[in-house]
Amino acid sequence: MNVRYDTIPSLQAFLDALPEAVRSTRIDPVPPRNHNDWSALMPEAPAALFCPRTTEDIAVLLRAANTHRISVVPQGGLTGLCGGARPVSSGIALSLEKMVGIEEIDPASATITVLAGTPLEVVQNAAAEAGLYFPLDLGARGSCTIGGNASTNAGGNRVIRYGLMRDLVLGLEAVLSNGTVIDATTKLIKNNTGYDLRQLFLGSEGTLGIITRLVLRLQPAPGCTHAALCGMGDYASVLRLLDGARRKLGPTLSAFEVMWPDYWQIACDVPGVRSPLTQQHVFRVLIEAQGTNEAIDSARFTTFLEEMFDDGVLEDAVLSQSLSDIKTFWGVRDACSEFKVTLGPHLAYDVGLPTRQADEFAKACAAAITQAVPGGKSVFYGHVADGNLHLLAWLPGAKYQPAKAFDTAVYSTVREFGGSVSAEHGIGTTKKPYLEHSRTAQEIALMRLIKTALDPNGILNPGKVIDL
Amino acid sequence: MNVRYDTIPSLQAFLDALPEAVRSTRIDPVPPRNHNDWSALMPEAPAALFCPRTTEDIAVLLRAANTHRISVVPQGGLTGLCGGARPVSSGIALSLEKMVGIEEIDPASATITVLAGTPLEVVQNAAAEAGLYFPLDLGARGSCTIGGNASTNAGGNRVIRYGLMRDLVLGLEAVLSNGTVIDATTKLIKNNTGYDLRQLFLGSEGTLGIITRLVLRLQPAPGCTHAALCGMGDYASVLRLLDGARRKLGPTLSAFEVMWPDYWQIACDVPGVRSPLTQQHVFRVLIEAQGTNEAIDSARFTTFLEEMFDDGVLEDAVLSQSLSDIKTFWGVRDACSEFKVTLGPHLAYDVGLPTRQADEFAKACAAAITQAVPGGKSVFYGHVADGNLHLLAWLPGAKYQPAKAFDTAVYSTVREFGGSVSAEHGIGTTKKPYLEHSRTAQEIALMRLIKTALDPNGILNPGKVIDL
Repeated sequence: MNVRYDTIPSLQAFLDALPEAVRSTRIDPVPPRNHNDWSALMPEAPAALFCPRTTEDIAVLLRAANTHRISVVPQGGLTGLCGGARPVSSGIALSLEKMVGIEEIDPASATITVLAGTPLEVVQNAAAEAGLYFPLDLGARGSCTIGGNASTNAGGNRVIRYGLMRDLVLGLEAVLSNGTVIDATTKLIKNNTGYDLRQLFLGSEGTLGIITRLVLRLQPAPGCTHAALCGMGDYASVLRLLDGARRKLGPTLSAFEVMWPDYWQIACDVPGVRSPLTQQHVFRVLIEAQGTNEAIDSARFTTFLEEMFDDGVLEDAVLSQSLSDIKTFWGVRDACSEFKVTLGPHLAYDVGLPTRQADEFAKACAAAITQAVPGGKSVFYGHVADGNLHLLAWLPGAKYQPAKAFDTAVYSTVREFGGSVSAEHGIGTTKKPYLEHSRTAQEIALMRLIKTALDPNGILNPGKVIDL
Repeated sequence: MNVRYDTIPSLQAFLDALPEAVRSTRIDPVPPRNHNDWSALMPEAPAALFCPRTTEDIAVLLRAANTHRISVVPQGGLTGLCGGARPVSSGIALSLEKMVGIEEIDPASATITVLAGTPLEVVQNAAAEAGLYFPLDLGARGSCTIGGNASTNAGGNRVIRYGLMRDLVLGLEAVLSNGTVIDATTKLIKNNTGYDLRQLFLGSEGTLGIITRLVLRLQPAPGCTHAALCGMGDYASVLRLLDGARRKLGPTLSAFEVMWPDYWQIACDVPGVRSPLTQQHVFRVLIEAQGTNEAIDSARFTTFLEEMFDDGVLEDAVLSQSLSDIKTFWGVRDACSEFKVTLGPHLAYDVGLPTRQADEFAKACAAAITQAVPGGKSVFYGHVADGNLHLLAWLPGAKYQPAKAFDTAVYSTVREFGGSVSAEHGIGTTKKPYLEHSRTAQEIALMRLIKTALDPNGILNPGKVIDL
């Protein structure tokens, strides 16, 4: 499967230019897992794989790659869904998997300093052991790396409370395409000394530099968590519940997950998933608050829901009485991870819409899907409070899903609503054709200008996010 | 005072190139207020002043300025302290003061869309009228503009709760040096579609583009506010109080202001300032929490302080019983704005340090000041929870303050501690000589690379932040 060197004339020259200590970080043959990320693209073996252990090694690799015009695809936990870490046979893959470790926890500054290849779950656990909390969380926590989370500006369920990865990074170290090391590993929240270089590397999917080290902001561990599953008759009630939650739960509000009716039905059909709501409703919302004190915050949560019920916003609600209840509630929301089994092949989308228009969009998008693919079905759910809607589309019983038709229907509707074709998954290669549905020609031209300035030879993750 | 046109050969050609509608936005003669910002630099009249009313007018102005190589200094409320908006006689000033207005408030998305010249206080009031809250706040709220707040990444007292301006901007529109309009006015919190272009313009002090329009994130209005003034015997206790506040007040914690002993003495000598603490302490901390419900959050706040007292962290504490008490407490913290009168001429610094080292820094810096300027005095205070320390230095009775010696003593100590020479005020021109105390040569080179890519003719706010 590995490509022979003679297909890339300069690869041998590149290898010869490396000092032995760096050349020895090569893994040959390339393990199959490094041939792809979690996208549905065909696997492709890189011409070579390197797993360096230090920033200095990465600097040497990039300097040589830049000189010899060798493409470099950075890899973390390979859990991305858009092909951002999929290697190319005409270049090398540079995996951060050996750059693992917690370097420091500073309780006074509430920071943790970590190497980029460290798995997210290891960071979460290290913070917890110090009595603190790293709030980023997503399903792939055991496999994804913190550097990958940073490069893709990962989101997750608790963005309304704690922000995206972009908001959790105080400082970072990154290596530019020419091997220059940018050491911006500050712990400072307030640091107005010139341009914020962090932001160039956060969310740019490894196309502007390779993140090697991160200083992350930690939070106090939540003292208690409360959740409820709410049933409502219309989207106006969902918006009233959200408004109430913002006001009455204030900054303790940590999740607000909306499930449209078709989603609910399919989720409850997943084996092991139990619906705590017994009546029929149009919308179901999972609402969660993280407080500091069980007695105080439990009363606040209960009072809030009683008020919403008395005001006619809720048709019904079930409150968590235990951690086990909270797990059951999230079980319905997370049932989508089992849909591959119960639903069969389907396409998953991750789009952004202004909160007010999410239901209007869902209706328009469902209609567009049915029109584009007769018999096509769709379900909607998501983190609506931060404008992030997930949707699934499929043609029941079809051997091949009409992906292109679904894509066109979904992304055209997104464009009509002024939404985002990728709320949290990124662009990679799979969403690149639709980038211009969400960004203007002027924005894309400015992205190209920045890419060209930072990586004039285009060696860093070429073909990802934008084309030159 | 206005420079004659013949000193800038191309100015007439630039003026001639403008369509009449844009040429008519010129204000001649230039009012004295546009000759400087609030920095201590000498006023300088720009060759011409324009006050355009639309983004399109600004695009036309910049396109012509770029063609004719005319420098453009953007101006907002002119309340900056570092000379970032001070014009130059060899170029024009472009004031956003006529670009004023609230365009939309969207309660479901919790956003407000505003023109860049709108004063901060107008934005705050518009949010409040809609039952929402724009949390950025600073002394100059009535004069400073929201575009200036964005360009300088303004901070203020409640950064630990709500973040800096960078965290409050969801979308923006900006005009590049060549007149290209970048429309990135999204309302979406989650939008991972390529590079985050917002961040280029936020905090870059008008050197990469002129911000013309902003979409800001709003918060629910706080339901109640509680405050306390605490007296403590050592810095270890301050850190224990901070740790306790983070855990027990959780996300309601909205301010944590530390005052060193000399500061306290001088503040209490300001006429009209009243000390609610009667005993002597080494450190005083003003702690504030914004909750949702008076009954619930008042109990939490009181219990927290009682625990801290029982644990021996606090020597004494006075709790607010009314809004008037809260005002009195902030009166001591804000007394520094009167120091010009009570203390006489002095130099004010705004630096960033890791929270753990703030006291160690204060001691080292005070010693460096006394060593550099025999008889020199200093006081320290600030938003220590987010690493932001303010300090004042002066030589009592001196006709001319030895500014250079003070600068060197302070910024050398900042460099030793790995701190920031500007936590929230920015770099402008006055802090430019010390930028390399906080940023590496590689970082500054990368800033130059970006500046050159976006503004190849160097017309935008030349000489500010970095030199080319």
